Amino acid sequence: MAGSTFGERLKMTTFGESHGEAVGVIVEGVTPGVELDEAYIQVQMDRRKPGQSSVTTPRKEYDKIRILSGTFEGRTTGTPLCIMLNNTDMRPSAYDDIKSMYRPGHADYTYEKKYGIRDYRGSGRASGRETAARVAAGAVARRLLERRGVSIVAYSLEIGGIRCETFDENVIERNAVRACDPSAAERMVELIERLAAEGNSCGGIVECRIRGVAPGLGEPVFDKLDAELAKAMLSIGAIKGIEFGAGFEAANMRGSEHNDQMDASGFLTNHAGGIIGGISTGDEIVFRVVVKPTSSISSPQRTVDMEGNEREIATIGRHDPCICPRVVPVIEAMACMVIEDHYKRQAALLDE
Amino acid sequence: MAGSTFGERLKMTTFGESHGEAVGVIVEGVTPGVELDEAYIQVQMDRRKPGQSSVTTPRKEYDKIRILSGTFEGRTTGTPLCIMLNNTDMRPSAYDDIKSMYRPGHADYTYEKKYGIRDYRGSGRASGRETAARVAAGAVARRLLERRGVSIVAYSLEIGGIRCETFDENVIERNAVRACDPSAAERMVELIERLAAEGNSCGGIVECRIRGVAPGLGEPVFDKLDAELAKAMLSIGAIKGIEFGAGFEAANMRGSEHNDQMDASGFLTNHAGGIIGGISTGDEIVFRVVVKPTSSISSPQRTVDMEGNEREIATIGRHDPCICPRVVPVIEAMACMVIEDHYKRQAALLDE
Amino acid sequence: MAGSTFGERLKMTTFGESHGEAVGVIVEGVTPGVELDEAYIQVQMDRRKPGQSSVTTPRKEYDKIRILSGTFEGRTTGTPLCIMLNNTDMRPSAYDDIKSMYRPGHADYTYEKKYGIRDYRGSGRASGRETAARVAAGAVARRLLERRGVSIVAYSLEIGGIRCETFDENVIERNAVRACDPSAAERMVELIERLAAEGNSCGGIVECRIRGVAPGLGEPVFDKLDAELAKAMLSIGAIKGIEFGAGFEAANMRGSEHNDQMDASGFLTNHAGGIIGGISTGDEIVFRVVVKPTSSISSPQRTVDMEGNEREIATIGRHDPCICPRVVPVIEAMACMVIEDHYKRQAALLDE
Amino acid sequence: MAGSTFGERLKMTTFGESHGEAVGVIVEGVTPGVELDEAYIQVQMDRRKPGQSSVTTPRKEYDKIRILSGTFEGRTTGTPLCIMLNNTDMRPSAYDDIKSMYRPGHADYTYEKKYGIRDYRGSGRASGRETAARVAAGAVARRLLERRGVSIVAYSLEIGGIRCETFDENVIERNAVRACDPSAAERMVELIERLAAEGNSCGGIVECRIRGVAPGLGEPVFDKLDAELAKAMLSIGAIKGIEFGAGFEAANMRGSEHNDQMDASGFLTNHAGGIIGGISTGDEIVFRVVVKPTSSISSPQRTVDMEGNEREIATIGRHDPCICPRVVPVIEAMACMVIEDHYKRQAALLDE
Repeated sequence: MAGSTFGERLKMTTFGESHGEAVGVIVEGVTPGVELDEAYIQVQMDRRKPGQSSVTTPRKEYDKIRILSGTFEGRTTGTPLCIMLNNTDMRPSAYDDIKSMYRPGHADYTYEKKYGIRDYRGSGRASGRETAARVAAGAVARRLLERRGVSIVAYSLEIGGIRCETFDENVIERNAVRACDPSAAERMVELIERLAAEGNSCGGIVECRIRGVAPGLGEPVFDKLDAELAKAMLSIGAIKGIEFGAGFEAANMRGSEHNDQMDASGFLTNHAGGIIGGISTGDEIVFRVVVKPTSSISSPQRTVDMEGNEREIATIGRHDPCICPRVVPVIEAMACMVIEDHYKRQAALLDE
Repeated sequence: MAGSTFGERLKMTTFGESHGEAVGVIVEGVTPGVELDEAYIQVQMDRRKPGQSSVTTPRKEYDKIRILSGTFEGRTTGTPLCIMLNNTDMRPSAYDDIKSMYRPGHADYTYEKKYGIRDYRGSGRASGRETAARVAAGAVARRLLERRGVSIVAYSLEIGGIRCETFDENVIERNAVRACDPSAAERMVELIERLAAEGNSCGGIVECRIRGVAPGLGEPVFDKLDAELAKAMLSIGAIKGIEFGAGFEAANMRGSEHNDQMDASGFLTNHAGGIIGGISTGDEIVFRVVVKPTSSISSPQRTVDMEGNEREIATIGRHDPCICPRVVPVIEAMACMVIEDHYKRQAALLDE
Repeated sequence: MAGSTFGERLKMTTFGESHGEAVGVIVEGVTPGVELDEAYIQVQMDRRKPGQSSVTTPRKEYDKIRILSGTFEGRTTGTPLCIMLNNTDMRPSAYDDIKSMYRPGHADYTYEKKYGIRDYRGSGRASGRETAARVAAGAVARRLLERRGVSIVAYSLEIGGIRCETFDENVIERNAVRACDPSAAERMVELIERLAAEGNSCGGIVECRIRGVAPGLGEPVFDKLDAELAKAMLSIGAIKGIEFGAGFEAANMRGSEHNDQMDASGFLTNHAGGIIGGISTGDEIVFRVVVKPTSSISSPQRTVDMEGNEREIATIGRHDPCICPRVVPVIEAMACMVIEDHYKRQAALLDE
Repeated sequence: MAGSTFGERLKMTTFGESHGEAVGVIVEGVTPGVELDEAYIQVQMDRRKPGQSSVTTPRKEYDKIRILSGTFEGRTTGTPLCIMLNNTDMRPSAYDDIKSMYRPGHADYTYEKKYGIRDYRGSGRASGRETAARVAAGAVARRLLERRGVSIVAYSLEIGGIRCETFDENVIERNAVRACDPSAAERMVELIERLAAEGNSCGGIVECRIRGVAPGLGEPVFDKLDAELAKAMLSIGAIKGIEFGAGFEAANMRGSEHNDQMDASGFLTNHAGGIIGGISTGDEIVFRVVVKPTSSISSPQRTVDMEGNEREIATIGRHDPCICPRVVPVIEAMACMVIEDHYKRQAALLDE
């Protein structure tokens, strides 16, 4: 696993298991001289932390971050930031009964096959807890992007088959599921509570919009902006697909429909989702990702143990019946990292 | 643009514009001592080359590759392979009328914004011709994967709204659209011919299946196998989305449905698409990508020129009304590169 | 500064300033299943820590490391190790008088020019303290190399003009300067003590020998084994040059002298220093580095302040009058990282 | 061998064996819009090519380069440049007698051990011919540096024990050994001619000076400017050591001597060689490398063959008795790549 580093000029390297001592991240390449403090980062951490509402896991990690390096007198110095979170609510014993069984939908089996050894406590490195480190790094990138006038917002577009029909950015942080339609949000909350009671879970779709990005970002032919965003998103555990702009609908469109024509005021449509030829057009970047249903469910399922014996398993523990609300800040964080990194790469390309 | 290199231990770096002297690729990290000749690679080139049938562009590039380095007496030496294709059917004059206009759906505008200069001849570096270099590199990776017993096949699952209803792998290379259902293939060909006559184009969905992959490939947390495949696929110009296994359908599933349960014989389902926690399960890897309708259409569209004046444009030239048939070998090539690279990374991890 | 990551398949990323909260390192790509605990790493830390003898700075950092992630039940898991050291003996006030002046030989001026901001407390990121993180990572690599039968030893060959005339590996850790000749060691200690009293410092030469390396490591043409070792060594603050085998003496040799001839038992000489064409020969790898005199001296020197005014400065503080003894474990650590990384790269190359 | 790529934002990937079809390089990340043509690059190629004088190998490679991509109408486009040289004077038969023997000082043995297969024709990939590709890439970097006012010059400081005693930059390109002292140059030429007649060879020292570099380049803590230059230089086959500024002399200096003090007009000395803390000071960057004696000599030497039998070998062929004169442009080329790359990285760091 040398896969814990992400980015080229703005770079993060994460560490930490769900029930180890701590999780954290080193962020390299941060522009020096920028005001940044722990409180700024904490705002994003609090959006991801468990226990925010009735629809999220009650595990109590206060997720209080500390900056251990890379700032001086309230400003970044250009040296690596290390941001750390201690794990404070570890209950490894809760996982004792599953240490020899592979939970369906979880990475237990694949980690075992890859490494030959597995920290089974709360999924170890494969836990969603690892994304806390990403959110911390993403907050640093967000700080840099603010100065460029770039804003990034993600939200639940669909949960368990219930789809938002309106879009109001102001309601997103005001409902427990981070949906963009308050009426859909109510039904989503009801559904999730019902599924929790049934010991089941559901998936959904999260949409992300990035505004204010200059045209010209992205590095053909392999490090296209959409390619990098796709990698960033698919690197989040629960995400199984991504589409830009018209996305999979493009399969049913004609060229005459899909092409974004222009007039003197700019593009007339945005089927491309703000990226053409792997380079930002200057228009809003829009993508959607599909979030699979939470793997941890308490209804019984068939599996095998490490010796290959057939077993039945019910995952008892503290889990989110739907990951969408808490994955929203993770998606934003990854998008922040990608966009800021590409601004820096473009600066390197054009520099004289 | 330092984005022309892909891969870590098996690595390709491509060069070349559509109407420059040549396109080509350097492949680094190739296992030494493996039998490989130009004929083996040519087979894949011929699957991507233009002019194969009534539904592809009549541009005549024989796409005859030459290996300039990295082999000796019919075997790889472990040193970089350079594989080159001369451009033989260049007609730059055909593009003179569009050198100052941005074609809708094309990367003309974004290249201009990024680089401040643009090789407008046949889209230059943004041309699909660049993918010929990828297919050459992919053939090298395919050769290495054969020895591991891994096979990769892609095919058109849906074109212009017509979807395959049966799956017969044997028919794929026997119909002009590389569909897996011969009856759907006939209707697809008819549709494409009609669209060509109308000066229009259509999109589609290509599915890819990778078999024989050992469990354990993929490098959490960022270089997950699905994340790397997603980047690889989205780096192909016409592709606007990807989904693994159940994909976007997962948004409508419950955890109890989506989780792949196991018995002593293995996984009972494959909703995960052969990758869990970013690591291969050993099951078939399955993903689908959406291919946008070809941007080049001859029906008139609105655009602007470099001075910002509103103009009308009709892209005359030699183009595929649907990219699916020819993108199939490109998708396979990229998948070959990703899988072989991850075998090598896993070898590095476990090595003692 | 995105330059805080080193290595390809075995990779370290360091963070931390001299007088910040902590310094530390994330090590990625560690072979899973290997026994490793804090005590093993601590042995190396103790060799680098200050206050070991009369010739080293009395700053009291116990340099007690903690492993925060990547091990489970006493074994590595293949996930990133985070190893951290708190800074416990910070006296930032001691540096207040120099915050506006550039100390000769120090990186004060260059950090200011590069970043436009500078954590002046004890040189901040440019402090030798940063190398503690390298030693921790190097200990992990050393653990992996042990299993391969590779051993790495460095020692002071020359200090302040006094050169070792005998070589006894057993005495190295038994004298305060880590010299390979006990009689020279005594004179070196005397010299250093005298220079300390005079407020001056001296340089030296450290030699490193790596044994048991298999032939075949190194990645031409750019990532040659000697090229990577050279980068590793020159990345250590005080080191200003490196030479392999016969080194600069080769300038005075004829081809007939320098060439290492072979007979059936192997190489007859080792002027190449164990690396030919950038690849290990299987013979002992030998290189020497030059260590500049410690920049911090208390005798007065000319400099300027941030406003460009001419000033005089005497660096009062806790410093080593000669860096050689404490840089020895840092050199070994960097060598360990390079060699283990190249074993892993070779495994990736050859893997079938 | 995935080691054929060098650089981060300005990046080159080389290919080619000594007696294969061609050698060449892809240069990525080139600033777009810069005037560049083949003639500009050819000037540098001609400085490296064989057959320039009585002291270089008579092998006749006209080393005529072609740019295959990445420029348009005389300007760079920001897309990868592929620059190629055909091999025109191949005489593989000349190497038949040595295909089963390991030439002392050559990489025959190590390539065999690493790859298990070896292109023995003229050293294959390990040949000095590979550096032609570097010189081509370096010329591109030089073109970019010119616009920044940076100049790079290298020269033979010492050959076969004869050392330059004066420094006149204007004479360097006017003598066959590229020495900076015309009187020493005469004696060097005599020595080399005599050694050639005797079937022997000699080593030397090349010095490089880089002027006009802004302060602030270099990326601590691992990608320090001197560390990257060291790697670049040691990646050249014949180079066995490097030292910056005072170099190995620093071992005999006191801190009070070595420290570069400042007054209002800048640094009073340059013992650091223009780099402190891994970052350029703005002063001249000065380093020296040691060049080993050419391994190919016609006087008989002991070796073994592939079966381990003891043999005697005399390397007949076309070789330079001293590599210094022709390695000068290679050193400059590598330095150009490193410096321009670091300008681009600095632009990425500071970009807002």
